[in-house]
Amino acid sequence: MKITCSKSNLVKGVSIVSKAVPSKTTMPILECILIDATTDIIKLTANDMELGIMTEISGDIIDRGMIAIDAKIFSEIVRKLPDNEVTIETLDNLQTVITCEKAKFDIAGKPGDEFAYLPIIEKEDSIEISQFTLKEVIRQTIFSISDSESNKLMTGELFDISDNILKVVSLDGHRISIRKVPLKKSVADRKLVVPGKTLIEISKILSGEAENVVSISYTKNHIVFEFDNTIVVSRLIEGEYFRIDQMLSSDYETKVRINKKELLSCIDRATLLVKEGDKKPIIINIGDELMELKIKSQIGSMNEEIMITKEGKDLLIGFNPKFLIDALRVIDDEEVTIYLMNAKAPCFIKDDAESYVYLILPVNFNSAA
Amino acid sequence: MKITCSKSNLVKGVSIVSKAVPSKTTMPILECILIDATTDIIKLTANDMELGIMTEISGDIIDRGMIAIDAKIFSEIVRKLPDNEVTIETLDNLQTVITCEKAKFDIAGKPGDEFAYLPIIEKEDSIEISQFTLKEVIRQTIFSISDSESNKLMTGELFDISDNILKVVSLDGHRISIRKVPLKKSVADRKLVVPGKTLIEISKILSGEAENVVSISYTKNHIVFEFDNTIVVSRLIEGEYFRIDQMLSSDYETKVRINKKELLSCIDRATLLVKEGDKKPIIINIGDELMELKIKSQIGSMNEEIMITKEGKDLLIGFNPKFLIDALRVIDDEEVTIYLMNAKAPCFIKDDAESYVYLILPVNFNSAA
Repeated sequence: MKITCSKSNLVKGVSIVSKAVPSKTTMPILECILIDATTDIIKLTANDMELGIMTEISGDIIDRGMIAIDAKIFSEIVRKLPDNEVTIETLDNLQTVITCEKAKFDIAGKPGDEFAYLPIIEKEDSIEISQFTLKEVIRQTIFSISDSESNKLMTGELFDISDNILKVVSLDGHRISIRKVPLKKSVADRKLVVPGKTLIEISKILSGEAENVVSISYTKNHIVFEFDNTIVVSRLIEGEYFRIDQMLSSDYETKVRINKKELLSCIDRATLLVKEGDKKPIIINIGDELMELKIKSQIGSMNEEIMITKEGKDLLIGFNPKFLIDALRVIDDEEVTIYLMNAKAPCFIKDDAESYVYLILPVNFNSAA
Repeated sequence: MKITCSKSNLVKGVSIVSKAVPSKTTMPILECILIDATTDIIKLTANDMELGIMTEISGDIIDRGMIAIDAKIFSEIVRKLPDNEVTIETLDNLQTVITCEKAKFDIAGKPGDEFAYLPIIEKEDSIEISQFTLKEVIRQTIFSISDSESNKLMTGELFDISDNILKVVSLDGHRISIRKVPLKKSVADRKLVVPGKTLIEISKILSGEAENVVSISYTKNHIVFEFDNTIVVSRLIEGEYFRIDQMLSSDYETKVRINKKELLSCIDRATLLVKEGDKKPIIINIGDELMELKIKSQIGSMNEEIMITKEGKDLLIGFNPKFLIDALRVIDDEEVTIYLMNAKAPCFIKDDAESYVYLILPVNFNSAA
């Protein structure tokens, strides 16, 4: 194989596919990036068997062929090359020579045909949303997946396509995050559970441009994201996702309108007094026009008051401050509305259209009171 | 004690003195910042017994007094306060109340008189240089101090004041770095060994403005840096520094002029192939108009050629690539001159005026050839 391409194209492509290189694996070939120039297009591929990414880079193919090269060393070499045309040539013994200007690297490759190709997907159905929207909904929900493998479904996010709306849901047993995205084209209802890791890696690759589209297609076991010159294929998580509808409620006894930034800064300050792993709640006292927030730990205590507009009953309730911070950080509205029932029922932060819903369970604070 | 000051002044002051708060100590009081408002000026002080920093902040003293507050929690609180006037008030039981807008923190303080004050220094002599120059000479030499405590003198830098020139020297047994700064005023000759840690922390505090001056004074055991509203006092390292003059030589057999950026990029690329801890040398082959650089490791090999201007003999010599990189990075010249004797003698990178001299010992590469 012998190809040439610009350093910048190569860096971009290697950086994209590197997201699917496993950090640990028992199959050394998966630590490689496959350079496939067997057709008229130069393709880079990486695949950890759960998540696979293929991207095309423009360049010239002088001799067709393919080679697998250790991803870590290849990406370091490529990044440090001079900003010019790069030639990659394989010798008979799989030695690979990377040349750019007067710099010449000589490293060992592995046979390309040992590489685990991406599964061939027969697409059943598909939806389209903008790169911007996909990147946003991931950011706005990914924090409430669970990182514990004890419940595999909680490590993923539900993509619930229904009535031409994509509803993205994550939950970890203490809170639920929901974002809704209207779809432009009519499509059959479908529920998919996408691994959190896949979404985290995809959101790093997405350019986030509003005018660029991602096509999302799916089969029984796989989901495929296509955008720019890149294809991301991921396994789905098997099983039926939690029935969240029965956890949601539109009843409330107390409704609070509050400036989001003020609330967020206040809780952020309060958490200074809480060491990591220490489960001190923030205690919220909702009165007529004021919300008082209090926290107390071994380090000291803090209290602060914020002006609010309230409907309904007064309420004293405690929360894990991190859960409030996570939700407030990803809401773009200047003011938020919080719906509460009593000190033992979850609170809901949501907008009128329910384009977002954040459910957070309160914590008991009798001991801290 | 009761004082008020702006959040920004407080943040700045706390950030400066925090550099002298020890990360580990058997004296808990040293983990504090002392707020001293016993006179007409608010002073913040931290002191790890080797290095002490005091800075003044402007603000109003309502009730005189002093208090020591845990540095970590105090600096976190201060940074997260709203951007407004801050009030700090101590109660009878040493509880300290920090108020800003509607936020109120209540934390425990410690008696200020338990704090270890900065030593009172009777200045013998002093020099003045610009903040910019001091920050630069530290950056340009600090990388070649030794971090091993087995030879205490190597963990510091020599400040050699002689003939109205300040010569700053560091060495670690494999290399020597020297920078010279002309002094404006006449001053008695003197040799001081300043702890590396002191210089690292000072260079973080220095604004680096060319028009701002640092006054450096010294006694038998201490050095004092005064700038802006800050005083840094450090112990000196005891003992006689290495006689470096006998290690320097102006003889050479080979003299090379080379583009600094090209050489640095090339060595930087080559080190990709060397894993940390692996002592692979870069082998430099100096010919008439070309310098060839080669490196070989288990990962692969790399070679590159750079155009040079050469006087004297051809030479094949090996170096630890990191040592070359460290020196080249802090030289601002576009072209550098390298003086070499033979494959076993040190090379010198220096300018004609010897405002900088970097001595680097070569490494044996028979085994790698």
